[in-house]
Formats: sequence, C-alpha cells, structure tokens
Amino acid sequence: MVKNIELPWMEKICLGAREASYKMAVLETAAKNAALRAMATALAESRDAILAANAADLVEAEEKGTAPQLLDRLRLTEAKLEGTIRGVREVADLPDPVGEELERTARPNGLVIRRVRVPLGVVAIVYEARPEVSADASCLALKAGNAVILRGSSIARRSDGAITTAAASALERAGLPAGALQLASGGGHQALAALATRDRDIDLLIPRGGESLKAALLKVATVPLLFAADGNCHVYVDAAADPEMAIEITINSKTQKVAVCNAAETLLVHKEIAADFLPRALRALAERGVELRLDQRARALAPADLNPPPKDAVAADWDTEYLAPILAVGVVDSLEAAIAHINRHGSHHSDAIVTADERAARTFQQSVDSAAVFWNASTRFTDGNRFGMGAEMGISTQKLHARGPIGLRELCSYKFVIDGTGQLVS
Amino acid sequence: MVKNIELPWMEKICLGAREASYKMAVLETAAKNAALRAMATALAESRDAILAANAADLVEAEEKGTAPQLLDRLRLTEAKLEGTIRGVREVADLPDPVGEELERTARPNGLVIRRVRVPLGVVAIVYEARPEVSADASCLALKAGNAVILRGSSIARRSDGAITTAAASALERAGLPAGALQLASGGGHQALAALATRDRDIDLLIPRGGESLKAALLKVATVPLLFAADGNCHVYVDAAADPEMAIEITINSKTQKVAVCNAAETLLVHKEIAADFLPRALRALAERGVELRLDQRARALAPADLNPPPKDAVAADWDTEYLAPILAVGVVDSLEAAIAHINRHGSHHSDAIVTADERAARTFQQSVDSAAVFWNASTRFTDGNRFGMGAEMGISTQKLHARGPIGLRELCSYKFVIDGTGQLVS
Repeated sequence: MVKNIELPWMEKICLGAREASYKMAVLETAAKNAALRAMATALAESRDAILAANAADLVEAEEKGTAPQLLDRLRLTEAKLEGTIRGVREVADLPDPVGEELERTARPNGLVIRRVRVPLGVVAIVYEARPEVSADASCLALKAGNAVILRGSSIARRSDGAITTAAASALERAGLPAGALQLASGGGHQALAALATRDRDIDLLIPRGGESLKAALLKVATVPLLFAADGNCHVYVDAAADPEMAIEITINSKTQKVAVCNAAETLLVHKEIAADFLPRALRALAERGVELRLDQRARALAPADLNPPPKDAVAADWDTEYLAPILAVGVVDSLEAAIAHINRHGSHHSDAIVTADERAARTFQQSVDSAAVFWNASTRFTDGNRFGMGAEMGISTQKLHARGPIGLRELCSYKFVIDGTGQLVS
Repeated sequence: MVKNIELPWMEKICLGAREASYKMAVLETAAKNAALRAMATALAESRDAILAANAADLVEAEEKGTAPQLLDRLRLTEAKLEGTIRGVREVADLPDPVGEELERTARPNGLVIRRVRVPLGVVAIVYEARPEVSADASCLALKAGNAVILRGSSIARRSDGAITTAAASALERAGLPAGALQLASGGGHQALAALATRDRDIDLLIPRGGESLKAALLKVATVPLLFAADGNCHVYVDAAADPEMAIEITINSKTQKVAVCNAAETLLVHKEIAADFLPRALRALAERGVELRLDQRARALAPADLNPPPKDAVAADWDTEYLAPILAVGVVDSLEAAIAHINRHGSHHSDAIVTADERAARTFQQSVDSAAVFWNASTRFTDGNRFGMGAEMGISTQKLHARGPIGLRELCSYKFVIDGTGQLVS
C-alpha cells in the first residue's frame, strides 16, 4: 500500500465518511428519500444565504480577474438553484437501486448464492467552479446509499459551504448518520493528494473538471477513479443513408447545443454519397453558423459561397473536441475506414451511423468501441435522463465499472450473499 | 493525461494489442472456442519444450539461492501443466459472455436502447513466478474477447516464453488476430511503469502478486487496476448458533486449505455461547495443529492442556492474514460488535456467520462490507467454480467493477446500442 499523505483534517473527514457509509448501507429506502426531501426543503429555505454566499464568491473572483466563462460557471442564479432543488426532489422519487437481486444461483450442494446490489461505500467528488454540483452530485450518491465527500474549488468556497452546510444539517436532522455528506475543500494540491490516496476509506473518486485536474489525479491517486468524459463524437453518413435524415442528424448532433460532451465534432461521409449529400449538408451547417474544417475531398464538393468560409482540416482537427460551432468533415472510402477513423481519433463516447442498411449499422455498432453507438439518431441522446436512467453524474468513457451515463446503479457495487445449512468445502 | 514513459518495444506491444482488440471484439463464439482448443492442443504438443524451459528457469533460480517457497511456485510439473491444458479446454466450453443483452428500454420517442455486454478491450496481467498463469489467465481474458498482454517475472522468463510462444502461434493459426496474446516481460521497473501508464491502449491491468507489486503499481499506474485480493476472513459464531455446526464451519474455514485467500484467519464468538462452544472448538482446532492466538476472554475458557499451546493475541493479530495454521480468537459482546470488528479489521473478502437466527444472519449479511457474506457455510466457498461462474482469475475485494470472483463476465464491459429512425434532440 502506498503510504498516505498525512493531513489530519482530511483523515478525520475520510474516517468519518467510512463510518457513516456502514450506516448508510443499511438505511431503508423511505429514510433516504425523506432525508433527500428534507435536503431540498433546506436548500429552498437557505436560498438567500446561498445566493449571498455566491455573490461574495463572484465579487472576489471578479476582483481577481477570473475569466468570464469561469464566472458563468460560478454564478448561481435563482433559476439554477430552483432547478437543483427540483433535481434533488426528483432523485428522491427515483427507484432505490440498493438491494436489487442481480442473480440467484442454487448450487447442487444446497447453497443459495445471490448477487445483490449494494452501495459503493464512500464516494468522493472533486469539482470545479459549479456550486450546484454540491447538491446535484451528492443527492445521487446519497440515494445510492453512499457517504459523500465533496471537494469544490477555492473560487466557490462560500457557495459550496452554504449549500453543503444547509444540506448536511438537514440530512442529519432527518436521521442520516453524521458524516454522510462532508465538504473537504481547501488545502491545495497537498489536500487533493491526501484525499486521493486514502484508498482504505474511499471506494471511488469522481473528478468533474478539466484536463489539468485529470492529470493531477492520475499522477497521485491510489483511489479508483471514474472520469466524466471528453467527447470527440462522430456522425458517419453511410453510402446507404437517406440524405435528408443524414442532414438532420448531422445538424442536430452538431448544433443543438455545442458546448457539451455528446455534440458531434467530426462528420465522416462515404465517398459514394458524398457528391449528393455534402454540398447540401455543408450549406445547411454553414447557414447555422458552423465553421467547417474540410479534408481535400470534402473541400472539392463544397459550394464556393459558404459563409463562414470553410478551412482546410489539419491533422489535429480529427482529435479535437471543439465544444464550439466548428465541425471537421472528411470523406472515407468505406464503412471500415470510417470505423477505423473513429476508433483511432474518437474519445469512445458517442458515435452515430446514418444508413438504411441494417448490416452496415450492426457492423458499425459492434465495431465502434464507444460507450454509445447510434443507428439513425443524434449523438445528443447520450444522457441519463434521455436513456431513461434518471439523473446522472456525467458520462464515462472508461470501460471499467461504468460506461456511458453514470446514474444511480453505476454508483453502486454488489456483494455475494450466500445462505447455507452447514455446507463445508471438501 | 500523464505523459507516458517512452519505451519503444512496450509501445509496439501495446499498440498491437489495441489493434488486435478491435478484431477480437467482433469474433464469433465458435472462432474463439476453436482457437482456445487449438491453444490447448499446442500446449500439449509443446509439453517437453515447456518443461525443459521450466527446468532451465529452476536451475538458474536455485543457483541464485531463491527461497524454496518461490521455487515451488515456479516449478511446473507434468500434472500442473495437464491441469492447465484441461482448464483451457474447459474455458472453451464455457458460455460466451460477449453480446449478452443486459437491459433493453424502448423510449417514448421510439428509440430502442440496449445495454450489451462487450469485451473490455486490452487486458494486461502482471504475475509472479507461476508460469501456468500464462495460460490460465490468458485463456479467460481471450474467451471474453479481449486482447491480452502478459508480463511475467524474470525468474520464469523461459517458462513463460515457451508457453506463450506455443499458445500465441496456435491462436494465430486458428484465425485470431496477431497481437491477441503477447508477452511483455523484462525491462524491470521502468518497463512495468511504461506498461502501467499506457491508459490509451490498456483498459485493465490485473496484478497477480504480492504487496510489493501492488505498491509499485499504485505508485505509477494510470491504467485502471483490479487487484486479486488478500483475505483476512472471519467466522462469527452467534449466540444462536448450533455449536456442532459452528465447530465444523470453523474447522473447515480454517484448516481445509490454509495458504489461500478465503481461509479464515479470525474466529469471533458471542459471549453468550462462548462457554459452551469455545472449549470444544479450541480443542478441535488444536488437535488439527492450529496455533491459537486468544484474547483474554477466550483464554479464560481455553482448556489448560491445549497442544500446540495457545498464545495471547496482540493487536496486530486482528489485522493479519496468516495463510498458515494460525487462528486469532476473540469473544464479542454482540452481533454489532462482531460486525464492527470485521469491518474495521477485515479485508472485505469473505466472512461467515453461524446462527439459527435469520434476523441476525440478515443483519450480518447486510452490514458486513465484504465481497461474500455467508450464513451457515464455510468461507472457503468463495471461488468462481464453487459459485457456478466457471473459472476465475482471482477474487477482487475492490468494489469498483468486479467484486468477488473475477470470471468471464467480470472481464467484460458493456456498451449502449441505440436504434433510431431519425430521432433528434429538441
């Protein structure tokens, strides 16, 4: 075992969470739901204090010259807070994943072996700027029966503190164990490392932040990590596609919302349909303000008068998650070439094929190594709510444990519960 | 992303495995099974070469003064090799986990969303001494549709090389992609670090070795890890236990095989049954050569003439996995005290309660935070085969992804396969 980085206050939080996790694991569904509703009520009643704390965070952040994009993420509006409170109530209404029997085997020797869903235990969430995550993420992890450690960024410390204080005291009054929800912000990189190396006390750490947080954690963490993902998503228009449907799916995947992980960043087109499809598709995209980055064959088919004018795609374009109204466009020789391109350049998030050919669709869905593989639908559907899973904590592109939306079930583990009558191994 | 440690030969192996993984993922079940049978045949045909390579490894190891226990693990007997070959054939006969539909949802908008089991992709296995793992572990990972990278220890390099060469060439002749099975031994810690940081190419690394390997990997790895576990397992004899059954389960859990992770290391006894149960139990254990480490209350109830004579338990005993005929014994005041002891000192592997009281059993099974929780059965049952899962690659005490036996399903991931008719997000 790697020696933990010593930090008494962090140790205290982690040991408290571990203790609380044992009590959380045996709570009745009704007790958890009542506690979450009490949390929602407390947040509503603390609205003014939370917004005042957020205003103070914003003043300090502005004085420090924080970038406008980050300020936007930091800013809690009344509407945002209402959405969060509503979200907590919705999570209280979701079915409890804990206790579900996943499998039952009766063995010849009479043992009955059940695989039963149980909480993970202690879930730590490290996030940046967005204070509403303090409530959004913790209510999901709590509903799944976990104790939660939140670590927000210093820029949001007053907001996170106000939300967590209101929530945690309401939860405790409603009967949840002390330590079920704790804030472990502050202390810089050393504190992050102390948290991320407490593998005896923490079962999962979910980072919700950018690449620098990811890199910092990969360097030090001994606690298992689950990354909410980047999305370099693709739409592939097959030779057998309906061009009208292909245009609609491309536009929806690219433009319905651009700064999200399930938006398309690259369009690949089969050479046999390119002359029919591309001129119309590129015009439709440009009309919606999309800046196009075209490979040579796509450029040869582009209308001359596109505005904004297209650029030539360079190698880096195929690997870039723009999160902006920009789309890389390439022509491919075959379905296989499209699949190889996506597996090589994609981020294994969400990729779509448009085709009337079921065999091509099945090959694509089987061969593209991504969390979600769509046939004739927009990549924008990858989302816990749209998948019918309820709320989620991000999309995982990892293949271990949880792939795709991280919902309530994905915040659980399982155990084997074995009933015997004195059986011995011989 | 953490910068990878550059090592061209390791990079080549990892990129080759990633390429192979895409081809492995779409193989038919029959093709995988035929390849595994060809691998078994090739191992049988290479028996002499493999045993000769092993003999050479043993000579060198003996010359270097290797410990007898390690030599035992290194030694491949004809019987061991036959067992391994039979095991490969058995894995070929197991049902294919890939392609199984785990869940299907039809959404109101007409989208059909299926959660389908798929291979993990590239699985790396790092192991020490035991050359038969080269075949045992790789056939499981291959059957689950993964490409496999093996990294054995230098002490076994000729044995591992002979097995892997025979296996890999048979697999390739049988139609599996080149790179489906590769050996990446040698190069010391730097090479291990190079392997463990290729998180773009490797989906899971399974270390099968001791604490020093675990510590080394936790320090450097950015690839997700799944540890085959230590087992500090408990038998708790409740107030309502049948004393005869409790004695049998204790003896079986402790003595049926001692150097295994699912053997019991601590016996906890409820104070109300201690006077009846303990004298007989301690005598029966001592008669089977078990050295007892008793707390004060157990010592007060121990027969005076036990042989081997019992020792006083010290604090460290409660945390020790003896893997030897030694048992720590303590008396507890309540079921709750037993649960708290196990959660605090155990390794979350396998723990048993012996009781006639179903309510006590359910509380124990719900509250003990372990991979397998037994009611009236021996802890020794925790095993993929005994659980009816088929062969396994060790027992995980981790809660992420796989808990308990790591069988074929646990070597898989899933993806969301979504069929639409042109659906857009609005």
